[in-house]
Amino acid sequence: MSGRVTVAGLGPGATDLVTPEVWAALAEATDVVGYAPYVARITPRSGLRLHGSDNRAELDRAHLALDLAAEGLRVVIVSSGDPGVFAMASALFEALEARTDQQTDIRILPGITAMLAAAARAGAPLGHDFCAINLSDNLKPFALIEQRLRHAARGDFAMGFYNPRSASRPHQFSRVLDILREECGPERMIIFARAVSTLDEALRITTLAEARPEMADMRTVVLVGNAATRRVGNWVYTPRSVEGV
Amino acid sequence: MSGRVTVAGLGPGATDLVTPEVWAALAEATDVVGYAPYVARITPRSGLRLHGSDNRAELDRAHLALDLAAEGLRVVIVSSGDPGVFAMASALFEALEARTDQQTDIRILPGITAMLAAAARAGAPLGHDFCAINLSDNLKPFALIEQRLRHAARGDFAMGFYNPRSASRPHQFSRVLDILREECGPERMIIFARAVSTLDEALRITTLAEARPEMADMRTVVLVGNAATRRVGNWVYTPRSVEGV
Repeated sequence: MSGRVTVAGLGPGATDLVTPEVWAALAEATDVVGYAPYVARITPRSGLRLHGSDNRAELDRAHLALDLAAEGLRVVIVSSGDPGVFAMASALFEALEARTDQQTDIRILPGITAMLAAAARAGAPLGHDFCAINLSDNLKPFALIEQRLRHAARGDFAMGFYNPRSASRPHQFSRVLDILREECGPERMIIFARAVSTLDEALRITTLAEARPEMADMRTVVLVGNAATRRVGNWVYTPRSVEGV
Repeated sequence: MSGRVTVAGLGPGATDLVTPEVWAALAEATDVVGYAPYVARITPRSGLRLHGSDNRAELDRAHLALDLAAEGLRVVIVSSGDPGVFAMASALFEALEARTDQQTDIRILPGITAMLAAAARAGAPLGHDFCAINLSDNLKPFALIEQRLRHAARGDFAMGFYNPRSASRPHQFSRVLDILREECGPERMIIFARAVSTLDEALRITTLAEARPEMADMRTVVLVGNAATRRVGNWVYTPRSVEGV
């Protein structure tokens, strides 16, 4: 069999949120490549080599996978959530762009992305038009993040934020909350969803007025409603309808 | 056992894109409620009642599910894709808001939404910040759609569009393409992904200059790249990095 690279989304954490398509790819893999905590989710078996690597080593990981495929191996790059949402799929194509083996057999297998798993736990806060923004400024300037936040707010999109806060940039999320309060007002609903579908899951529903930077860490996805987002019972939802503007 | 309503995402079409969590909910259901083509995806079995209904009957469907749960039944509302993305979860909470049984046991189970399944087939066109917009003006004015398109473009978001075109509003998507050409220029990449993961799947990758309204129908999800989105090999991807703005 000729080599192949499959990028597979493992979903947010729970085993029963991994699709059968992804299980099938793992069952026929010779090699699994990925950030070590994701690789640790794969059950070892004879004939399967596990290659865990550090965070921020995305391009190295992608080149390793392509090198192994060039040797005829069946490689699965595991990604949390969906591989196309702030995860390994773009890194693989960036690596591919720098190589001559651009005809490598590649498949991208979708997964449940953290933002949608979090939304499901809270109700339907993304039930109308929404934006997804990665708040990390590792790979883009904070000025662009601010510009996108303002456009998202002025378009009255609901929002989902990935990587809201890390030890290396503790103050930036505070600035994000200030921008949101300025654009959306203090009563806008905000949801902090940590480690959804794992044993560490925690959900906090509050308003921008009450939101504090410490409510988020790197395992948290943050959702912000649009102007119509509201509570019903224990739930938060965004209506499907908008009156004339 | 007391009654319950579960809203379950069946994914874009393929059986192997349905999560084990959703299969488990269907296995213990007494009643399945949904738009008839989605209910038709459920294998009949003894003890399971199937309630298929017409399109645009979302609120009726939600009330039926809540009525059945009030009788002690275990109801699954089936939704295509993810129930929280332009699907049945918001309709259920809208129905709930008008009722007194707001403490009904409700669960929302995420699924693979069409936009992310389509992105996976094309490569990683949503690999950076992106927006999801429902282009149907059944429940919102077209002026709001236009406003959101312009904010999404000016924020340089990649975009995913649901319900781009229907027989009842054939001209509107032409206007959407005009707005996008005006904001993003003719060379911007656009992807028409029809019925992804079904036998009718068709993918067309082109530019805004070449895009024609007839390339989309109601089974199509449309993806538009950001300014950096480009081809590599047979794929389309959006890089993770942005230089200083």
